[in-house]
Amino acid sequence: MAAARTLRIGLIPGDGIGREVIPAGRRILESLPSSLNLKFSFVDLDAGYETFQKTGTALPDKTVDTLKKECDGALFGAVSSPSTKVAGYSSPIVALRKKLDLYANVRPVKTTAGNSNGKPIDLVIVRENTEDLYVKEERTIEGPNGKVAEAIKRISEKASFRISNIAGEIALRRQNIRAASPTSTRDQPMVTITHKSNVLSQTDGLFRETARRALAAEKFSSVFVEEQIVDSMVYKLFRQPEFYDVIVAPNLYGDILSDGAAALVGSLGLVPSANVGDGFAIGEPCHGSAPDIEGQGISNPIATIRSVALMLEFLGEEKAAAQIYAAVDGNLDAAQFLTPDMGGKATTQQVLDDVLKRL
Amino acid sequence: MAAARTLRIGLIPGDGIGREVIPAGRRILESLPSSLNLKFSFVDLDAGYETFQKTGTALPDKTVDTLKKECDGALFGAVSSPSTKVAGYSSPIVALRKKLDLYANVRPVKTTAGNSNGKPIDLVIVRENTEDLYVKEERTIEGPNGKVAEAIKRISEKASFRISNIAGEIALRRQNIRAASPTSTRDQPMVTITHKSNVLSQTDGLFRETARRALAAEKFSSVFVEEQIVDSMVYKLFRQPEFYDVIVAPNLYGDILSDGAAALVGSLGLVPSANVGDGFAIGEPCHGSAPDIEGQGISNPIATIRSVALMLEFLGEEKAAAQIYAAVDGNLDAAQFLTPDMGGKATTQQVLDDVLKRL
Ligand SMILES: CC(C)[C@H](C(=O)O)[C@@H](O)C(=O)O
Ligand SMILES: CC(C)[C@H](C(=O)O)[C@@H](O)C(=O)O
Repeated sequence: MAAARTLRIGLIPGDGIGREVIPAGRRILESLPSSLNLKFSFVDLDAGYETFQKTGTALPDKTVDTLKKECDGALFGAVSSPSTKVAGYSSPIVALRKKLDLYANVRPVKTTAGNSNGKPIDLVIVRENTEDLYVKEERTIEGPNGKVAEAIKRISEKASFRISNIAGEIALRRQNIRAASPTSTRDQPMVTITHKSNVLSQTDGLFRETARRALAAEKFSSVFVEEQIVDSMVYKLFRQPEFYDVIVAPNLYGDILSDGAAALVGSLGLVPSANVGDGFAIGEPCHGSAPDIEGQGISNPIATIRSVALMLEFLGEEKAAAQIYAAVDGNLDAAQFLTPDMGGKATTQQVLDDVLKRL
Repeated sequence: MAAARTLRIGLIPGDGIGREVIPAGRRILESLPSSLNLKFSFVDLDAGYETFQKTGTALPDKTVDTLKKECDGALFGAVSSPSTKVAGYSSPIVALRKKLDLYANVRPVKTTAGNSNGKPIDLVIVRENTEDLYVKEERTIEGPNGKVAEAIKRISEKASFRISNIAGEIALRRQNIRAASPTSTRDQPMVTITHKSNVLSQTDGLFRETARRALAAEKFSSVFVEEQIVDSMVYKLFRQPEFYDVIVAPNLYGDILSDGAAALVGSLGLVPSANVGDGFAIGEPCHGSAPDIEGQGISNPIATIRSVALMLEFLGEEKAAAQIYAAVDGNLDAAQFLTPDMGGKATTQQVLDDVLKRL
């Protein structure tokens, strides 16, 4: 038997329920069947609003350095945003995405047989993760009629191309997985390009044109490519979510669309994400730090567990990922252990135990 | 009896089904009960993509001048966007909003007894209509790694204040109307401020702070004020739409949220809007030019008919507005004449006739 692959994973719980779900993610990695021949080592890292309050920075250099020098991947929990403006505070996850050049934010949204009220949804939002309004270049001037603030929305050909390219690759990979499934009904992979070029002809126009060009590559000849203006995309996402496969979008639209899609599957507590760069991935549940339920032991670990799988997928461990997804689907379909956001009464620990049992 | 008030209304059908629904809107105005003591005169005005193709401009000066000099209000249909970039073309409705300083885009979304699958929704999105990314200040530079395009997102204290102020006033007016209704369940008006200040601390931060300040005025002391980050707002809008009353948002978020809310009531063909300035209002259905159904006589006139009512409301004719809303509710509740977007088989004309009968 070949030597086991060892992956070193940074654990960044952050604030609030991030501290309850990240340990569950770690347990999943530690409990993977030995047949997968994977080993893990872990390093605990700080980030978040509490870190900011203690140290004056929300993302210590040590966290970034350790991820860069030692780690193969990471899990990120959630961060609390201060309820009023706090000088010097800035979101650590946004900074981390940029510092590690994690250019794609991949957010699959999927119903399972047991967790669907009617239409089966199986789509993924591929969100550009480094630019758009997230460059955070802002300024404020004091005018004759009061303050005027401006922010830059930046869209580059380079970032638009690589996000569209990975969206196309994800569409092909999904089609391969579907081809192996007897229940699949989609016969052609599809990518929907989202933009608002009817208003923003240069920025979103560049995104649209570049996406069209990237997806016109020979390797994507089997992919059906269409587009939607962002407002219409939100409308269609709600009217016929089962129609969509891969949706590629600039940063801010991707942020909004993924929360919208999460509403369709009943709870943000189910939706994972991966921040993906070349050879590195950070798994991150889509939900926030949820101060309202913090400390009660009832936060839903599913989004994090799926994020673990997604991280592994992008580290090349598709088999391990598939086993985790199947265990989660088993838990949801049985519907015996569900946390309160899903209408159940189970604790985080009970859901975790149930998924572990199915691994 | 006092002399009738005469209102002069500009009619701008635009493209596609705009030309089918605007005549229906005119018929409604012409058919208002004489007890309302209102008279109307009309002037036909050009705008849209077809106008652009014929004349080289999508919004002729004559249209703007006539609205400014002669009209009390207007109805705008829809415009087609070119499917690829066309040099010199720019959306006429966006330009019109700015040229007439129609600073508020008011979009009520409401279920009726007959048109609801469960939860009653009765909310209004109050969208800032003059700035944000819609200032359309863009530039493109050719960098070493390809093109980079930038757009300005501009948020001013002045525009944020007045949109929040009108949102508060709309909340109070809605509460007055509810107070007169025996079936109302909401006992306090509410305004939800939408922003993304966790990323855009200056621009959206300014919107948030200014909205808080505007809504802290003594006259709004009965209004409950809360806030939501825009991604979370989309999520909550879908999870518990019945919770919301008035949602105030910067331009782009308002655009996206109103299409999202429209999905909740089943069809964009039901959702009206009014572009409101001081003493002037343009009614505009939220739907587009719908080239797929153009010319078949089956476009839903309800969004336009409700936009007529909304325009009248902002021109001070609340009684006339209420009668039109009631006639529309009657049509929807009877569900005998519904256009195909609503699952029915009726034509535009049949729906119009049914509403006229109920006026
Ligand atoms: C917390 C916030 C900065 C973040 C974002 O906007 O990217 C979050 O909403 C997300 O989707 O990961
Ligand atoms: C057509 C387009 C420019 C417009 C907008 O974005 O404002 C439309 O979507 C709307 O909502 O009225």
